[in-house]
Amino acid sequence: MSSTVGLPIKCKAMVARAPKVPMVEEEITVMPPKAGEVRVKVIANALCHTDIYTLDGHDPEGLFPCILGHEAGCIVESIGEGVTSVKIGDHVIPCYTPQCCETSCVFCQSPKSNLCPAIRSTQGQGLMPDGTVRFKDSEGKDIFHFMGCSTMSEYTVIAEISCAKINPKADLKKACLFGCGISTGLGAVWNTCKVETNSTVAVFGIGAVGLAVIQGAQMAGASKIIAIDINKDKFEMAKKLGATDCVDPTSLDIPVQKHIAGIMTDWGVDYSFDCTGNVNVMRSALECAHRGWGVSCVIGVAASGHEISTRPFQLVTGRVWKGTAFGGFKSRTDVPKLVERMMNGNINIDHFITHNFDGVLGTNQAVEALHSGECLRAVVNY
Amino acid sequence: MSSTVGLPIKCKAMVARAPKVPMVEEEITVMPPKAGEVRVKVIANALCHTDIYTLDGHDPEGLFPCILGHEAGCIVESIGEGVTSVKIGDHVIPCYTPQCCETSCVFCQSPKSNLCPAIRSTQGQGLMPDGTVRFKDSEGKDIFHFMGCSTMSEYTVIAEISCAKINPKADLKKACLFGCGISTGLGAVWNTCKVETNSTVAVFGIGAVGLAVIQGAQMAGASKIIAIDINKDKFEMAKKLGATDCVDPTSLDIPVQKHIAGIMTDWGVDYSFDCTGNVNVMRSALECAHRGWGVSCVIGVAASGHEISTRPFQLVTGRVWKGTAFGGFKSRTDVPKLVERMMNGNINIDHFITHNFDGVLGTNQAVEALHSGECLRAVVNY
Repeated sequence: MSSTVGLPIKCKAMVARAPKVPMVEEEITVMPPKAGEVRVKVIANALCHTDIYTLDGHDPEGLFPCILGHEAGCIVESIGEGVTSVKIGDHVIPCYTPQCCETSCVFCQSPKSNLCPAIRSTQGQGLMPDGTVRFKDSEGKDIFHFMGCSTMSEYTVIAEISCAKINPKADLKKACLFGCGISTGLGAVWNTCKVETNSTVAVFGIGAVGLAVIQGAQMAGASKIIAIDINKDKFEMAKKLGATDCVDPTSLDIPVQKHIAGIMTDWGVDYSFDCTGNVNVMRSALECAHRGWGVSCVIGVAASGHEISTRPFQLVTGRVWKGTAFGGFKSRTDVPKLVERMMNGNINIDHFITHNFDGVLGTNQAVEALHSGECLRAVVNY
Repeated sequence: MSSTVGLPIKCKAMVARAPKVPMVEEEITVMPPKAGEVRVKVIANALCHTDIYTLDGHDPEGLFPCILGHEAGCIVESIGEGVTSVKIGDHVIPCYTPQCCETSCVFCQSPKSNLCPAIRSTQGQGLMPDGTVRFKDSEGKDIFHFMGCSTMSEYTVIAEISCAKINPKADLKKACLFGCGISTGLGAVWNTCKVETNSTVAVFGIGAVGLAVIQGAQMAGASKIIAIDINKDKFEMAKKLGATDCVDPTSLDIPVQKHIAGIMTDWGVDYSFDCTGNVNVMRSALECAHRGWGVSCVIGVAASGHEISTRPFQLVTGRVWKGTAFGGFKSRTDVPKLVERMMNGNINIDHFITHNFDGVLGTNQAVEALHSGECLRAVVNY
């Protein structure tokens, strides 16, 4: 039994004080979990581009000071009143998309969606569901939460409905990856698009999410997987994971969608995925989809204010434009299953971890690594 | 046996000599059908907005002089070499979307699409599949075909693969409506979106297509059907066909999508349909679709150069943007079935025919009627 139960915990955390300023390691105080909340010890945290996006000031709704991080493997330190689905010592993956499972939640009850809105409003404001924060800095001032996770801290507090309880035998330094990018890529293929055997697929942007899409498509039996990136260095790994063709759009003298739909295929690909967040690329992805039935899925998060556009003729002639959040996985139900599949050898994710760093302060090294372009996932072991 | 078989036929036709100029009744010559073609006597032709759109010069690809018309009921007068699926005397609906049924046609072979491209290129150039025309004016000069139909003529020539052979007992003055708008609206609901029992539906634009969507949704068991139009006069018929609510966006002080998704429903409608061709309305239709799973279908044909746009966030949070052409119906397979359902009393279309005119010259009266805004379908009986 932990001696910290019910007490504030002083620990190290990376605090983002302001946009465009490097995070600073600070000693903070993490208050005990309130009703329906869980305090967890973070074992490993992987860096995702969304953290950097906010840190770099691109998210107009970003709140500072805050503690970033949302791809982590954790152990439950204590639980708040009424928490029943996890207990002290359980291994959990915090999930930025919660799953309340209430019968009154049309999203949790529908097989079509994973977008449980139960704590959306407070989460978007950097607060816990009761409208307050659990983080204090050394002067006793509030620090905002981030995406309902804030895992760049030795301890954090999350809502019970954001806790995916996983097999305690899973390696948290690997399982943490299922908290965001890898699940998103795999789920876009398996849940959102339901890619079938022998389908043709195009993947725009070959970072970790794009590679997960390739891997998911390969596992789904796609017969042709076209990887598209302006960085040719990405192609080796893409091919290793199942890409059959690689295209650098900057080396073409026609738009990439015409190259794919007119030259590489007869009418386009059955499924295309944008993993870039660039709205022009989203358009290319749609327009390289097969006339009559091609489905294009937006995965990347676009910059604020940017809009997608196309001629409606593209839709009238049978293309479908959709998107995915967390790959359509219902977090508490599905993340544990993904972790089991990793443990069974059914989903290999080792190749995503290109960098490892130690200690909370290692987070800044992870940021540097992710900026370098050679990093897929940098895992920081706390 | 017709005495005209193999011979040119002189007959009356409405010729569109130039954009923005009223059509003129002329005596033209209709040449005999070549291999794979069918010459038909037009019994009734219904006017569709696409005809007017081209006549009014809005289609930059419109070719003149041409013979418009693509919603007709016809009787086969003669057949060209190799034609086997219809014979002289058969009753047919010309279809602007052909169905070649070849095993090499991925579109005809796929259950996902009806967009057979077999004669797309020549059809788009106002020509028969061999690259020539069958119409000559009184000076012997060529007149272009239109949408592979050109039914504003007492006789016309169409490709065999554009001929839907229907029950000869069907009233061609009614069955002609299945050549375009009504089929498109019904099919958008039944094929493209597969609207389920108890779904909620929003329909933007309450012309003939919009009313067909309402009717299709009502037949599919939708529990809430919201009709949206800036002309309140449309609401009576909308309600008669199944609309449960009617909204005039000009009477609201917030955008119509917010009114529908925030006030009239909890999170939006399960399915929305644009039947206006206005790209701003298409955006409203998408954005009033249910977070998590709402599907929005573009039916209207947008003006040249106009593009649809939205924030990608709309898709990432679960909305799906798609479109339909001819309601996803495979023309030769499905139009005969629609006609049978009309004959069985399963699909009532009488309410769509608001105007009847006689003789080829009656076409200009039909144009006037359609422009008036009080007309759903004006049928001209030749």
